[in-house]
Amino acid sequence: MNVGRVLGNLVATIKDPNLTGQRILAVEPLDGREPAFFALDSVGAGAGETVLYTTGREASYAFLPDFVPCNAAIVGIVDEIREEKK
Amino acid sequence: MNVGRVLGNLVATIKDPNLTGQRILAVEPLDGREPAFFALDSVGAGAGETVLYTTGREASYAFLPDFVPCNAAIVGIVDEIREEKK
Amino acid sequence: MNVGRVLGNLVATIKDPNLTGQRILAVEPLDGREPAFFALDSVGAGAGETVLYTTGREASYAFLPDFVPCNAAIVGIVDEIREEKK
Amino acid sequence: MNVGRVLGNLVATIKDPNLTGQRILAVEPLDGREPAFFALDSVGAGAGETVLYTTGREASYAFLPDFVPCNAAIVGIVDEIREEKK
Amino acid sequence: MNVGRVLGNLVATIKDPNLTGQRILAVEPLDGREPAFFALDSVGAGAGETVLYTTGREASYAFLPDFVPCNAAIVGIVDEIREEKK
Repeated sequence: MNVGRVLGNLVATIKDPNLTGQRILAVEPLDGREPAFFALDSVGAGAGETVLYTTGREASYAFLPDFVPCNAAIVGIVDEIREEKK
Repeated sequence: MNVGRVLGNLVATIKDPNLTGQRILAVEPLDGREPAFFALDSVGAGAGETVLYTTGREASYAFLPDFVPCNAAIVGIVDEIREEKK
Repeated sequence: MNVGRVLGNLVATIKDPNLTGQRILAVEPLDGREPAFFALDSVGAGAGETVLYTTGREASYAFLPDFVPCNAAIVGIVDEIREEKK
Repeated sequence: MNVGRVLGNLVATIKDPNLTGQRILAVEPLDGREPAFFALDSVGAGAGETVLYTTGREASYAFLPDFVPCNAAIVGIVDEIREEKK
Repeated sequence: MNVGRVLGNLVATIKDPNLTGQRILAVEPLDGREPAFFALDSVGAGAGETVLYTTGREASYAFLPDFVPCNAAIVGIVDEIREEKK
């Protein structure tokens, strides 16, 4: 899983029926190595928020029992990342 | 999920039976980092249109209950991408 | 899905039982960005032919009801790629 | 699977219900090619420890019978890596 | 699928229960583009041998009916790779 920032959203009138009613958000990864992409939102994230997202088929688990054809989902809103020294 | 443009289509007479009757479209990703690839079309997209696509096994969900051996599917036709400021 | 050319084949006497009887072909991607790899053949492709292949778990769908531990399958023999202008 | 080092953890109050009660750890891959990422912990790993992790949907197998929307899991704590000469 | 060489093995006392009893081998891909990684062995491969491996969830198919949280498996020992001219 990785952390990114929500940039905006995508509007598509014609789409797969399983995407109906889902919010499609543009997300910019914070590691700066990958370009922005589009993810379904399962937690109510908004523009400017820092979010935890997952990619791959497991992203669709956030929408079970529906089988949603998406490969990226926002699964948390980040409060804090704590570095631990040992 | 990512956004791309439809460039054309691929013709294959000999193919996996689960691909019979499916349109195989050439898609160019708009982020410019990846080369063009081939995706199945689940929404009736045409050449020149800007589309939302997904990759990986979840792409095949757009064709359930068939188990289609494809790793990319067009799942929406893009109307607009809205950047939100906060 | 992507397009590649068949270069040859791989022989392995000791292998996973689910690979028994499957042809393992060496494939060179035509986009030139990735090195050659090995794929199972579901359509009877031969050396020198231009093929459509898919990667990831969905590749194994071409061999259902067997659960074949492979991540790449040849799913079509390419006749033509048509660029469409609009 | 790959080997990495645990750097710290991520706190998210609002998250997918299937992530509730799971520890989300920041992991730095030891091969130095990929940036740090976030993984669920299935073995009780702590900061500074060297861990074996897996990515992709199979990461969620460590949490069955729950369907956890995560694409990375820590599945072992590394004692030793032995190079064998032959 | 790709071809690599077995370098050694990894020892982890604390690990996911589904990895118990499995050999975890270090593998160096022969294409030279990717760093070494760790794979489960389903065929009895040893150090120095050239092996065929698969990655992704389908790697776990080699260990069914167990659901093993691994994303790479050795599925064959390579005897020969034949280039075919046409």
